[in-house]
This record gives sequence, structure tokens and C-alpha cells, in this order.
Amino acid sequence: MKIFLVTGAAGFIGAAVARKLIDEGHKVITIDNLSTGYQDAIPEGVEFFKGDCQDYSVIKQLEKFTFEAIFHIAGQSSGEISFDDPVYDLQTNAQSTLLLLKLAIKTKCTNFIYASTMSVYGDKPDRPVKEDTELNPKSFYGVGKLASEHYLRIYSEYGIHSTSLRLFNVYGPGQNMDNLRQGMVSIFLAQALKNKHIVVKGSADRYRDFVFIDDVVKGFIKAYNSNKHGYKYFNLATGIKTEVGEVVEKIKSNLPFDVTVEFSGATQGDQFGIYADILKVKKELDWEPSVKLNDGLSKMVHFHQGL
Amino acid sequence: MKIFLVTGAAGFIGAAVARKLIDEGHKVITIDNLSTGYQDAIPEGVEFFKGDCQDYSVIKQLEKFTFEAIFHIAGQSSGEISFDDPVYDLQTNAQSTLLLLKLAIKTKCTNFIYASTMSVYGDKPDRPVKEDTELNPKSFYGVGKLASEHYLRIYSEYGIHSTSLRLFNVYGPGQNMDNLRQGMVSIFLAQALKNKHIVVKGSADRYRDFVFIDDVVKGFIKAYNSNKHGYKYFNLATGIKTEVGEVVEKIKSNLPFDVTVEFSGATQGDQFGIYADILKVKKELDWEPSVKLNDGLSKMVHFHQGL
Repeated sequence: MKIFLVTGAAGFIGAAVARKLIDEGHKVITIDNLSTGYQDAIPEGVEFFKGDCQDYSVIKQLEKFTFEAIFHIAGQSSGEISFDDPVYDLQTNAQSTLLLLKLAIKTKCTNFIYASTMSVYGDKPDRPVKEDTELNPKSFYGVGKLASEHYLRIYSEYGIHSTSLRLFNVYGPGQNMDNLRQGMVSIFLAQALKNKHIVVKGSADRYRDFVFIDDVVKGFIKAYNSNKHGYKYFNLATGIKTEVGEVVEKIKSNLPFDVTVEFSGATQGDQFGIYADILKVKKELDWEPSVKLNDGLSKMVHFHQGL
Repeated sequence: MKIFLVTGAAGFIGAAVARKLIDEGHKVITIDNLSTGYQDAIPEGVEFFKGDCQDYSVIKQLEKFTFEAIFHIAGQSSGEISFDDPVYDLQTNAQSTLLLLKLAIKTKCTNFIYASTMSVYGDKPDRPVKEDTELNPKSFYGVGKLASEHYLRIYSEYGIHSTSLRLFNVYGPGQNMDNLRQGMVSIFLAQALKNKHIVVKGSADRYRDFVFIDDVVKGFIKAYNSNKHGYKYFNLATGIKTEVGEVVEKIKSNLPFDVTVEFSGATQGDQFGIYADILKVKKELDWEPSVKLNDGLSKMVHFHQGL
């Protein structure tokens, strides 16, 4: 039985990755501060340490384990929220990574997978974004994630094989429906289920690349399995451009009742439009998405309606 | 009389910038933690707050001032030393900038000049480095400085005009001669003066771009005077490639006694060779260096011999 560290297993993506590893018969340890996740969401069987990944006294408790790999997924994950307290954001998204990389060195764990983000790119022209484009994050969140990517690259010269997965708009069953500032699809769906009314902050013609949680989990596992050659970084996305207005319509069409929609205002640090070029991840990680947006939304709607 | 904040005025560059402003009749406030600087080095007339720029309780004391501009120069400044404690490095070089930008917002100071570094570039081919090249810092120091550059760029959308000056190898009178891990010229000269023997960590054919402190101070002042249009960033260097072996020879030739030289080992996170393209700073900031390497070294040797 192998032991994995998955940070943030009380959150949407961390829980899904942890569940997958548990299902495959492994032991999973997690650290989560429950700031946006819920203890109930941590999959059964996961050993839970409550605290911040940027807190050395928390990380220190893990020095007794021999980890097969570290999946660092915890962290404040909203560009908008990062404007509330940029210093906290730097600590949760960059300092945490440093401490976990030091833990990896100390415990001789050489396999590190990092949940990075499309927010490292900033505003880009209307074409698929390649990994090697210039990086000009527009939010403190994006800056912290980018600093972490650099840390992985530097530590790869000291024997830690690592992969940064630049997640685009991840959605699916289990996404937090209580936080209306984090996760575009969950924000829209939560409003629709609660109020039959969706308020979209920003215009309908903005665009995104929506990737389903199961595909994302597969990406994390593939990255772990191929983590043998220094530092790598990939977009994890579908390569499909979807306008915000379109995803709103698709959510509406999956619901059995009418929903009104209102477009107003905008969000600090918001990228106008972005979608991924996924040639690199297809080729080097042998990963590609399999769930179509409408199918994924349908699964998500049914899951959350049933709650 | 205008009031300026110059962080790190107990250090080499901060002291020189503060002195220039004092000489022009302004009031200067500084924060310095005296970790590598000396209280004696703070120019006369500068109001001194002891503490860390990454410590909010220190920054808070400055909220009563109305600053004409903030020169953020404090910070751990060695790539090599940043490997000792990457978390501290992140705090001193990135968190500090966030707190000072928040101070700028709070006190309605719209002019911010930042001491960045050539270390944001990482390894580059053997030709002059332009500002828009890909940024792959090799040390935690470079990552923290780069995060700060991004913060300035983001805050420029909220009314703060700012300039990052990417300093290459700054040298000159006043450079710290007690710290043998920080400042290439000062390390060599200190060893020569003390032991008549220089130990160079790394090979003689590595190369750098050495820029004299007086030229650097002029660059800071020019940046302050032109800080009216969002975010800008420039190399501050001579554009001249000098091999490490050559600068050692020049130091030797400026000394009235014989010095032996030994090349051994290397330094973590060291860039092999780098020198700047300075077309952008010449054109947009109307700045160019005026002190030749041999003249600058001669001034420095005479200054420190006389101490």
C-alpha cells in the first residue's frame, strides 16, 4: 500500500483526487484548513490533519510519513477573492508550496503534482493559449500560483520530479455550491437552484474552457505516473472555447424549471476570455478530455438537485 | 519639502538613494531590519524605523505620512542566500511589496519605484538580454522579486504608477564588505583587502554586467520623475559584458599589493552569464550609464582602502 499526500481533500478537486487514490487501494493523508471546504467532504478513509499548508507546525507532523507522491491542491482558489487579502493569498498559494517541497526533500519523496491555474496567463488574444506564452497574471491568486510553478522548476534540479497542471474552469458534482465567489459553473448553478435567477458578473461574450472533474482527476493520475523527468507543465482543459452566455444557457436547459438571467458589473482581476491549446498535454501526458460540456453539466445538475 | 519612503536605507543601494534625496533637500523615512545593513550607514537626517517591511505592525506606523514616492529597495538580495530559507526570502522580497503597495493605496501615494533584479531572467543565451524575454528565475530570490514585479503591474490598474528597475551587478563605495555571500565585486575586494587572496566561487569565464552605484541612483531618480503612466520595467545596467576573470584582474590592478586568486566550486542558483540590452531604458527613461568599470573600481578601492 502506497501513501499519498493530497492537500485540500475537503475541497472539490482535492476530494476527487483523494477518492480516486482511496478507490485504488492506497492510503491518503490530507491537510485542509476547512476555510472553504467541509470536513464531511473529505472521502472516507482519508487521514485528516486540520491546518494551513503554509504553517510549518502543521507540515512538521507529516515528516514521519514516506509519501509515494504529493498532490498539492489546497489553496485559496479565486482570483476575485485574492484581492481581499493579497498577503494571505501569497501565503496560501506560494509559501505553502515551499513548505511542501521542503517536506518532499526531507521525506525523500520525489514525485510532486501541483494544481496550478489558467490564471497564470492573464489576458490573451482570442486563440488557444499555449503553455509557453508570456505569463502576466492579473490577480494575486495567479501571481502566487506562478511563483509556485517557479519553485517546482527550481526544486526539480534537486531531484524532485514535478508537474504543474494549469487547470482551466473545472466543474462537476461536488463543487462547492455555497461559495458564490468561486467556480463559475457552481456559482451559476447554485443561484439557479436557490433563486431561479442567475446574476452573471461580467458580460455574456466572455469565454472560458470548461473541463469536467473526472477528466481532471485522470490528468492528476497521469501526471503522477509520468513524473520521472524533472519539471513539466501542462494546460488541463478541453481546448474548446465556450462563451459565458452559452454555459448559462446550457445550465438553464438542464433544469426542469425556468431561470431568469441578469448580466451586471464585473469581477476584479477577471480575464476576459481564455481557452487552452491542449496539444502538449495530449502528446506528452497522453491525456485528453472525454466528457462533453452538456453531459458534464447534466451530471452535475442531477447530482446537486438530488442533494 | 517632500517626504520620501526609501526602504533599506541601511543597505548599499538604499543608503545611496536616500542620501541623494536628502542632498536635494527632501525628507526621507526609512525602514530597515539591519539584517545585513548597519545603522551607521543610514545617511544623516533620515528618519529610521527599525523592522521588517513584511511586518504589518512596522508598516502601520507609516500610515500617518504623505509620501511623494516610495522607493522599495529593502530585501534579502542574494540568490545564494535565498536557498538557506526560501520562506523568509518570499516574505522579505514579495510579501513586503504587497504591504508597501497597500500602504501606497492607503496614503494616496501614486509613485512607486522598485529595486528588482537581473535574477528574474534565469539562464539566457550569450547575447544582451532584453526586458521582454522569458522569465525563468533560478533562485528563490529571483522568484520573489518577479512576484513583486507582477504585484506592481496589477496595482498599476488601481492608480499606482510604478517602475521596476532590474539591477544587474551594482558595485561601488559603500557596498557591504563584511558579507562574503552578497555582491560580487565587494566579495572579491573584501577578500583582497583582508587576505591578499581572492577565492572565486565559479569559473573565470562566467560573465556579468557591472553598473556603478552613482549611475544606479540616477536611474532611481529618473524613474521617480517619469512615473506617470502605469507600470514600466527596465534593465539598469551598462550593456557591457565583462567576464568574472576580467573583473578580478581589474580589482587586482587597482591595488598597490599583489593578490593571489583561486577559482573553486560554484554557487547555488547562480546564473552562468548575463548582460543587459539597455536600449529600452535609454529610450524610455533617458538614462544611460556614465562610469566606466575601471574608473568605478578605482573609486571603490580608494574608498574602502581608506576605511
